[in-house]
Amino acid sequence: MEKVWESHVKITDRFWKKRLDIVKNQMIPYQWEALNDRLPDTEPSHAIENFRIAAGESEGEFYGMVFQDSDVAKWLEAVAFLLENEPDAKWETTADEVIDLLEKAQGADGYLNTYYTVKEPDQRWTNLRDHHELYCAGHLIEAAVAYYRATGKDKFLHIIIRYADYIEETFGPENHKRKGYPGHQEIELALVKLYEVTNNHKYLKLSEFFIEERGKRPHYFDLEKQARKEEKPYWFTGGYRYSQSHLPVREQETATGHAVRAVYMYSAMADLAAYTNDPSLKETCEKLWNNVTNKQMYLTAGIGSMEYGEAFSFDYDLPNDLSYTETCASIGLIFWAKRMLDLEAHHKYADVMERALYNGAISGMDLDGRTFFYVNPLEVVPKEVESRDEKKHVPPVRQKWYGCACCPPNLARLIASISHYIYTKREEEIFVHLYMSNENNMEVGGHQVEIKQKTNYPWDGEVTIKLSPEVDTSFTLALRIPGWATKADVKINGEIMDFQPIMKNGYARLSRTWKQGDTVELNLDMEIQRVRSHPSVRHSLGKVAIQRGPIVYCLEEVDHGKELHSIYLPKDADLKFEYEEDLLGGVVTLFGEAERVEGSVWKDALYSTSDQEVTPIQLKAIPYYAWCNREPGGMVVWINEKL
Amino acid sequence: MEKVWESHVKITDRFWKKRLDIVKNQMIPYQWEALNDRLPDTEPSHAIENFRIAAGESEGEFYGMVFQDSDVAKWLEAVAFLLENEPDAKWETTADEVIDLLEKAQGADGYLNTYYTVKEPDQRWTNLRDHHELYCAGHLIEAAVAYYRATGKDKFLHIIIRYADYIEETFGPENHKRKGYPGHQEIELALVKLYEVTNNHKYLKLSEFFIEERGKRPHYFDLEKQARKEEKPYWFTGGYRYSQSHLPVREQETATGHAVRAVYMYSAMADLAAYTNDPSLKETCEKLWNNVTNKQMYLTAGIGSMEYGEAFSFDYDLPNDLSYTETCASIGLIFWAKRMLDLEAHHKYADVMERALYNGAISGMDLDGRTFFYVNPLEVVPKEVESRDEKKHVPPVRQKWYGCACCPPNLARLIASISHYIYTKREEEIFVHLYMSNENNMEVGGHQVEIKQKTNYPWDGEVTIKLSPEVDTSFTLALRIPGWATKADVKINGEIMDFQPIMKNGYARLSRTWKQGDTVELNLDMEIQRVRSHPSVRHSLGKVAIQRGPIVYCLEEVDHGKELHSIYLPKDADLKFEYEEDLLGGVVTLFGEAERVEGSVWKDALYSTSDQEVTPIQLKAIPYYAWCNREPGGMVVWINEKL
Repeated sequence: MEKVWESHVKITDRFWKKRLDIVKNQMIPYQWEALNDRLPDTEPSHAIENFRIAAGESEGEFYGMVFQDSDVAKWLEAVAFLLENEPDAKWETTADEVIDLLEKAQGADGYLNTYYTVKEPDQRWTNLRDHHELYCAGHLIEAAVAYYRATGKDKFLHIIIRYADYIEETFGPENHKRKGYPGHQEIELALVKLYEVTNNHKYLKLSEFFIEERGKRPHYFDLEKQARKEEKPYWFTGGYRYSQSHLPVREQETATGHAVRAVYMYSAMADLAAYTNDPSLKETCEKLWNNVTNKQMYLTAGIGSMEYGEAFSFDYDLPNDLSYTETCASIGLIFWAKRMLDLEAHHKYADVMERALYNGAISGMDLDGRTFFYVNPLEVVPKEVESRDEKKHVPPVRQKWYGCACCPPNLARLIASISHYIYTKREEEIFVHLYMSNENNMEVGGHQVEIKQKTNYPWDGEVTIKLSPEVDTSFTLALRIPGWATKADVKINGEIMDFQPIMKNGYARLSRTWKQGDTVELNLDMEIQRVRSHPSVRHSLGKVAIQRGPIVYCLEEVDHGKELHSIYLPKDADLKFEYEEDLLGGVVTLFGEAERVEGSVWKDALYSTSDQEVTPIQLKAIPYYAWCNREPGGMVVWINEKL
Repeated sequence: MEKVWESHVKITDRFWKKRLDIVKNQMIPYQWEALNDRLPDTEPSHAIENFRIAAGESEGEFYGMVFQDSDVAKWLEAVAFLLENEPDAKWETTADEVIDLLEKAQGADGYLNTYYTVKEPDQRWTNLRDHHELYCAGHLIEAAVAYYRATGKDKFLHIIIRYADYIEETFGPENHKRKGYPGHQEIELALVKLYEVTNNHKYLKLSEFFIEERGKRPHYFDLEKQARKEEKPYWFTGGYRYSQSHLPVREQETATGHAVRAVYMYSAMADLAAYTNDPSLKETCEKLWNNVTNKQMYLTAGIGSMEYGEAFSFDYDLPNDLSYTETCASIGLIFWAKRMLDLEAHHKYADVMERALYNGAISGMDLDGRTFFYVNPLEVVPKEVESRDEKKHVPPVRQKWYGCACCPPNLARLIASISHYIYTKREEEIFVHLYMSNENNMEVGGHQVEIKQKTNYPWDGEVTIKLSPEVDTSFTLALRIPGWATKADVKINGEIMDFQPIMKNGYARLSRTWKQGDTVELNLDMEIQRVRSHPSVRHSLGKVAIQRGPIVYCLEEVDHGKELHSIYLPKDADLKFEYEEDLLGGVVTLFGEAERVEGSVWKDALYSTSDQEVTPIQLKAIPYYAWCNREPGGMVVWINEKL
């Protein structure tokens, strides 16, 4: 497989361009202020200051999480993606200054981690299980690769190559090297990226080593624990499931433990399966993919149903009001999905990727990119969150910044790189996974092909793709027909075509000699759909959710008053949609007649043998991602269904 | 009001006699072994050993909870009730030996608490908020009163009078006395009992003082905290709501905080309202009663819906699978209910008392009295309990003994004193609150009246009451017509009578001159009822529970397989009942046709737009109290209703 970076896609999409601008004008500047501790009323980050101290430019103590460096790395990566999209002298200068600072903070041997450099210089690599050293290295590698690709400048890349070489000399199968691997996976996928830009196989080998070593016995985390003379038992009752190191990766069949760690690891495994052509690794990825998406994923593509360990629990255990569903986990699911698509185009990967993008990932920020959810539940009852201890992780409003600030910069870098998720290009195939307006030049079969995609997605399923090869060129344009589309039309140059015979894995494979100005029109029927959960999902049985196209809907207190749980949607209720330009930045809302169980007739009784009484109400559903952008209050995705 | 102790009731009831025998033959012996640390595989109690050390008979350190003494007290009280029911030389001798030990452990000034005597002799009364000193004193007082009443022997009573006098010299409104009150209420209701047997008003006054002082500002717990130089904030986020000392008692309108503390306090308040004829205290009791039973009580009469603080949460917040619903809290609710009945006979109190007795209280033990639940949820999914941190307080099987062993001895003393809950006697009125076979002599209007109640309750609603006054005597026999009885017949000497005109507060008041051999027959229609929750109860909306007479039913995994949540009870399904002699010690089970949502047709899909498919199943419901006495597994009270 030829891995292709889609670095010259210009996003012209109404939905996403607005968000790219938010990243540029709001998130990157705001996060820069945060990293520099210039925000009032938020926990200080100290992340830049830690680098200054490590560089000898400032005096003081390390402050923050052991993985505080990664916030700087993710911010730099977001800036790199921003520069890839369009030049920006101000942020490029700032990034270059940060890169200069990183260079000064780097040790003579290449080591670059402010926690250990400042706080415990003699303790490097003594606690891979908990201390995120390799995790931070991974984020720095990702940022350096992105910055190199966006700007062509290689200073950051060379800093990071020095660090990666030092790591490669420290870890590996050779006798004199350490047999460790990170407690929080991340460097594995980053090393693949470093291989992609350097073409140096040793980085791929190191990534493979980290993956293959994982879970072997005697367990490395036990050995280093003994070396630390640590006595207390590991805090997570599931043991090393927490970091997916309970078993060698190929023996893992069920997603378990910390959800972000899991999907970062699966992403690297998918990469390695592609580059090493390892069928057993691919099979493991598929098995885990099926487990996650068929057994452990919320309708919003949120994953991780337990606050304890920010973790997966077990098949079909998806409580809507107690979930963790971390923004970063949905982002990681997107990373993984794209790699699965690159490995083998199948609409099931793209369907989940799209579901995560439009729902569980972007719900993590408000419409202005100023406040953030770390946790994205599917049901919120504010009074319960206030009162009940087991719900204290579910804040009913987004926060400005977090002490553990992983999610906001992760969102920034995801959105800034949204163009990377639209296409997969193989030799003479272009797969279109996502529909959003963009302009793009790709080399196919040795020729440049200009591709212009135009759509009003996700509100409308009409997509026009205009192809302009420099000369007539034969290739396959493979259009994803989403799983949710009950009906789809494809026209080429205005002529409708029967694409069923050329469907493969959910992609309509249009193979022909494409000419300048050829136009493909795709029309996906975005009907309003009622979705039910597998009956084993205890918390959603008897309920329906509503979706239209890729958008999952929810009900909010601001539209319906309190006690959203008392609303019933009759099975035959007619639901309509409307685009509301002035609502929530422009959204399609759904509305119709529903019922509400009446409490007032009960007076003082708590239990009664009488029937429930209902009153008709007007239902108004808004996109899930846009909830909590008006009056704060309750929210629910799964609505009782009246059969 | 004349407070009457019903000490000469002989229980002949099939249902309850069996349980009295379990208390005698199983619980009291077993708990005695536990108190003496002679049980293998359970946490040691050390409770007797603590007294030995305090008495100078043994050497060692105090071990256990600060309230470890109360386990001995509750056990002694249970033994007292056992001796009240029938003579038992063995246990009387053992109890006398324990009483001798208590005497030796008592200080010269009357003080009697092993934690402080052994561990912190200089720190008495320095932490009323957390250290249960007055709570333990209360349990000792209750035990001494019960032992005196049962045996006529006054040694224990005099030990306790010395202690109570010392407490009375320490606490009170006079300037030189401390203004404190217990963090865990209990002594308040105990002092009322001490007043009842001694007729010494100072105990009533002291109880009143503790109640009236509560919640005043400056807050006593703050003052003693300052005196202890304690810096850290109070652990409970609701502050002194935890111990219902956030406000003076008359300003409390909503039950809040630790449920057991709350109902123990309300019990004392009801007692004081009766003895002091204080209308505002009575009104507060009624307000709190209505709040608890109309807004915060499970169908099983379990209370306390939060594990955090073992506490009430807020109105209508009654999650079935996360509740705390401590056995002791339902027991405390029974204490309170009986006192409300003594204050003013109203079937609403008796209905709840009966509901707690037959459901949320006795569910706390298995059918042999060998294992115990501390927590009594209405829905258990074992896999969730295993996996989810917020459910770790809900063990899916009963345990042999607990480190904090409040519930088992509390159940023993409740059951052993079951005869105290059947009647309230006023001057010329006998109120019958509970129906169970018993024989009894009461003095009414100056004459002895023999009363024989015969019934097969709770499986059958037919009750025969035979009255044999020594001479013809005029009085009112007030029979409770339970709220659940949609139909009831009353016959006197075989002749049916229209009791509607003589109903008051749910009691049929049969006033006449009763003659030797008069027979009253009451026939309560025990139809199978479907109960719904107030629509504000989010977790039970759309569901029904089944009850018959006072018994709430549940479904168990052993009868239905896993995933009880997928069962639907059609609204028109015909339910039948059957008495099964050989099942669960003899119970009425309910059965009928129901449906189950079919998971197998879903194959791999987690979400789908297709309709749910159902298959018919046979439903079998068993009494909630008897769950978890066969194969361990899931259980559910609230069943989905198909309309």
